[in-house]
Amino acid sequence: MTPVMTADEISTFLDREFPQIHAGGRAYSIDSVSDGQAIVRLSATEMHLRPGGTVSGPSMMALADLAAYVVILAHIGPVALAVTTNLNINFLRKPQPGDLLCTCRILKLGKRLAVVDCAIAGEGSIKGAEGFVAHASATYSVPPR
Amino acid sequence: MTPVMTADEISTFLDREFPQIHAGGRAYSIDSVSDGQAIVRLSATEMHLRPGGTVSGPSMMALADLAAYVVILAHIGPVALAVTTNLNINFLRKPQPGDLLCTCRILKLGKRLAVVDCAIAGEGSIKGAEGFVAHASATYSVPPR
Amino acid sequence: MTPVMTADEISTFLDREFPQIHAGGRAYSIDSVSDGQAIVRLSATEMHLRPGGTVSGPSMMALADLAAYVVILAHIGPVALAVTTNLNINFLRKPQPGDLLCTCRILKLGKRLAVVDCAIAGEGSIKGAEGFVAHASATYSVPPR
Amino acid sequence: MTPVMTADEISTFLDREFPQIHAGGRAYSIDSVSDGQAIVRLSATEMHLRPGGTVSGPSMMALADLAAYVVILAHIGPVALAVTTNLNINFLRKPQPGDLLCTCRILKLGKRLAVVDCAIAGEGSIKGAEGFVAHASATYSVPPR
Repeated sequence: MTPVMTADEISTFLDREFPQIHAGGRAYSIDSVSDGQAIVRLSATEMHLRPGGTVSGPSMMALADLAAYVVILAHIGPVALAVTTNLNINFLRKPQPGDLLCTCRILKLGKRLAVVDCAIAGEGSIKGAEGFVAHASATYSVPPR
Repeated sequence: MTPVMTADEISTFLDREFPQIHAGGRAYSIDSVSDGQAIVRLSATEMHLRPGGTVSGPSMMALADLAAYVVILAHIGPVALAVTTNLNINFLRKPQPGDLLCTCRILKLGKRLAVVDCAIAGEGSIKGAEGFVAHASATYSVPPR
Repeated sequence: MTPVMTADEISTFLDREFPQIHAGGRAYSIDSVSDGQAIVRLSATEMHLRPGGTVSGPSMMALADLAAYVVILAHIGPVALAVTTNLNINFLRKPQPGDLLCTCRILKLGKRLAVVDCAIAGEGSIKGAEGFVAHASATYSVPPR
Repeated sequence: MTPVMTADEISTFLDREFPQIHAGGRAYSIDSVSDGQAIVRLSATEMHLRPGGTVSGPSMMALADLAAYVVILAHIGPVALAVTTNLNINFLRKPQPGDLLCTCRILKLGKRLAVVDCAIAGEGSIKGAEGFVAHASATYSVPPR
C-alpha cells in the first residue's frame, strides 16, 4: 500500500480545506507518512489540557480522527469528502506532559469504507502497547474512486 | 434514579474545575438535568465548524463526552475524578447549522463503571431517531462511593 | 419509516437463507416488527449459558447482530447481502435466567450504511434503561437500492 | 509483561469452568501464549458458517471475546470472575474457508480494567493488516488483585 501524497502535500491540503483545525493556534502537525501508515503530532496548548497539565480526552479524540483522515488521504489522494462514520476509543493511561504522537495504520481501504487503527503515545514514552495512552479505531466513508 | 445536583450546580462545578472547556469562548451549556438524563447544548462558534458551516466530528465527540460527564455528575455528585474509559460514536447525518443538543441517558451506574448513551440532534430537527446527527455511548470509571 | 416485511416473512427468509442460525436447536425468534423497530427473542438453551445459568456474552452479541439484521431487512426487503461492518456492545448487568429480548431501532437507513441501536433486557425485567443487560450499536453495509 | 499460565493450563481451566464453550463440538483452541499476547484458533464447523462457507460474524465475535479472556487469564492467573464490559469489532473482509487465528495483545492491565486488541486473520492469509478479516478491542472488568 503505497502513499500517493507526501506529508507536506497533505498539510497544504488541510490548511486550505480545513483551516478551522488550527483555530486557537497551530497544534497538529504531520510527522510522517509511509506505507499504510501515518504519524500525526499534537503539541498541546492550554486549550487541550485538563487540570494538572494532562491532555484532555476530546483532544485525543480529535487527534485520532485527524490522524485517521491523514492516513486515508495519503493513500487515496486529496478528497475533501471522506467523512468519519464511526470512531471508537479506549483511554488507557493518563498522558504525561509533552507532545502526543498518534500512529495510524490502515486496516482496510475498500471501495466505500476505510478502517484504520490508531495508537496514541507520549513522544518519549516506553515503546510498545504499555506506552499507549489511548487506542482507537475509526471508519471513514470514502468517495468512489 | 434521582439527580443530586442541579444544572446550575454542575455548571458552577465545571467552571471551577475545568475552565479549559470554555477555551476559545463559552460554547457548551447545560439545558436540563432530570431522572437518569441530562441535555447539554453546543452553540457552535467558528472553531467548531467545518467548511459549509457544519459542526465538526471532534466537536460532536467533545459534546458527547461532556454530556456524559454531566449526567454522571448529576447523579453521583461533584467528583472531579470520573474519567472516560471508552467512547464509541456513530456519525449519522450532516448537522444543519444551529445549536446541537446532546441528550444523555444513564444505562448503568455501577460501583466502578457508569455507562451512558447519547443522542445528538439539531435543536429544531424532527423528533426521534430520524433527527439524530450522531449517536454515542460512553463509559466512565467512577470513584468508589 | 414503514416496514416492508412482516415478522413471519422475515422468519421464513432467514430459515431459507441462514439455516445455520438454528444450528444446535431453534433459539432465536422474532417477536415483532414495527415502524423503525424490531424485537427479537433468545430462548437460551444450554449452549448459550455460562456457569450459573447466565446467558453468555457471545450469545448476546449474536442476538444483537441478528436483531439488527432483522430490523434492517424489515425495512429494505429480503436482501441476503447486507453485512455487518461494525458492532459495539456494552455489557451492563448479569442477565437473570429466562428469555432475553433485544429491541432494535433504526438510527439511520442510508444508501450504503444502516445504523441501529439495540437494547437487550430480560423478558420480565423492570422497564427502562435500568433493566437493560446489554446495549449495542451495529452498522450494516446495505446493497444499493 | 510475563505470562503466569501456559496455554495448556488455560485450556484445562476453561474446560473445567466453561464447558459450554465446546457445546456443539470442540472448535476453539489456544495456539500460543507469550509476553502480553495470545493466539486462539477457531476451526470452524457447520454451526460457525454462513452460506458459501464463510465464518459468521457472531463466530468471530465469540472468538475475539474468548481470545481476549485467554490473554488476560494468561497474565493474571485463573480467575473465573473476569467479565467483558465492552467489545467493539470491525469486520473488514470476507474470510476464506479454513481456520481463523485471533491474535490478542494486552493494551492495559489495570487494577480494575484490562483492555486488549484483537486481530483475526485466516491461517494462510497474507501477513500484516491487509490479511485481517476482523479487528476488535475488548475491555474486561478484572477482580482486584
